[in-house]
Amino acid sequence: MTGRRSVAEASNTRQNILSCAADMASVEGLEGLTVGRLATALGMSKAGVIGHFGNKLELQLATLDFAAEVFRREVWQPAQHVSAGMPRLFAICDSWMAYAGRPAFPGGCFIAAASHEFDSRPGPVRDALAAHMRQWHAQLVADASIAVEAGDLPTSTDVEQIAFGLEALAARVSPTRQIYGDERAAEHAKDSMLSLLGQPTART
Amino acid sequence: MTGRRSVAEASNTRQNILSCAADMASVEGLEGLTVGRLATALGMSKAGVIGHFGNKLELQLATLDFAAEVFRREVWQPAQHVSAGMPRLFAICDSWMAYAGRPAFPGGCFIAAASHEFDSRPGPVRDALAAHMRQWHAQLVADASIAVEAGDLPTSTDVEQIAFGLEALAARVSPTRQIYGDERAAEHAKDSMLSLLGQPTART
Repeated sequence: MTGRRSVAEASNTRQNILSCAADMASVEGLEGLTVGRLATALGMSKAGVIGHFGNKLELQLATLDFAAEVFRREVWQPAQHVSAGMPRLFAICDSWMAYAGRPAFPGGCFIAAASHEFDSRPGPVRDALAAHMRQWHAQLVADASIAVEAGDLPTSTDVEQIAFGLEALAARVSPTRQIYGDERAAEHAKDSMLSLLGQPTART
Repeated sequence: MTGRRSVAEASNTRQNILSCAADMASVEGLEGLTVGRLATALGMSKAGVIGHFGNKLELQLATLDFAAEVFRREVWQPAQHVSAGMPRLFAICDSWMAYAGRPAFPGGCFIAAASHEFDSRPGPVRDALAAHMRQWHAQLVADASIAVEAGDLPTSTDVEQIAFGLEALAARVSPTRQIYGDERAAEHAKDSMLSLLGQPTART
C-alpha cells in the first residue's frame, strides 16, 4: 500500500506542479518559467520540483502537454460525439468560446500565447506546439470538408481558410479582453465564426 | 556644423538601435530584450546603448513606438487617402495583408506578438501598447460605421465585431506561417476579411 500510495502522491505532486506551471507560463510565457519561482509558488524545494522533470525543457514540454489536455477536455470533449461536419463545427464554436470566455489559465488561452511566443524560436517546444496545433487544425479541416460534402458549405469553400479563420478568431479573445477590457470578446469571436460558416447572427 | 552633425548622428544611432531592438524583440519578446545582447548585436558598448534611453523600460517603450510607426507607414499610409468607409476598409485589408505577407520584422507582426506577451502584465508597456491598439481599433470601427451609413454593410452590423474580426485575422498570419509553414496564411486572412465584410471571394 505504501508503494502504491507514494506513486499516487508523486502523480498528484506532478499534476500540482504542472497546474501551477501552466498558470505562471500563461502570464509570463513558457520561456519565462523558472524552477526557482515555481518552487517558491508551490512551497517546495527546487530539487523537489526539478526531480519530477529532469530539466527545464522537460518541464516546458510537460506544461505544454498539460495545457493541451485541458484544451482537449474543455473544447473537444463536449463536441466530439456531435455529428461530424457542420453540427460539430457549431458545437466546437460553442465549447471553444465558452472556454475562451472563462479562461482556464490566468493569462488567457495558453496555446495561442505560446504560438506567438515560439513562432520564431525553432526547437523542441515549437515542434511539440506545432504537433498539438496541427492535430486541432486537421480536425477543423476534416469537419469543414464533411460540411462541404453534405452541402452545408458551398463547394467553392476553401476548408483551410475556414480552419485558419476559426483559429484566428479564437486566439484573439484573450488579448482583446485583457488589453481593451472588452468583455464581449468571446461573443464577437463566436458571431464572427458563425459568419465565416455562412450563418450570420442578427445580434444588434 | 559640428553640433548639427552630432545631433543627426545621435538620431541615426538611436534609429539603428531601435531597428535592431525591434528585430530582436519580434523574435524573443519585448521582455526578453536586454541591453547587453543588443549592444553585442550592434557592436556598441552597453553604456552607448543605454545612454540613448536611460533604462530598459524606456528602451522597451521606444521600441514599441518604433514598431507602431512602421505599422502606420506600411498599413495606414497607403490607405489613408482612400474614401472613408468600405473603400478604405478594402484598401486597409490590401495594405495590411501585403505587410503581413512580407513581415517587416524577423519574428513577424510585432504588435500582435506584443499583445499576447503583455496582455496579462499590467504596466507602462501594456498601457502604451493598448493606446496604439485602441487608435487602430477606433479607425476600423469608424470606417465600418461609415460603411453601414453608406449602405455598404447591413444596418444590423456590429461594427465592434467587424474590427475585432479584422484584427484577429491579421494577428494570426505570422504564427500560422511560422508554425505550420503555411505560405498562404496572408491570403487566407485576406479572403476571410473580405468574407466578414460580406464580399466572399470565389478563390478555389
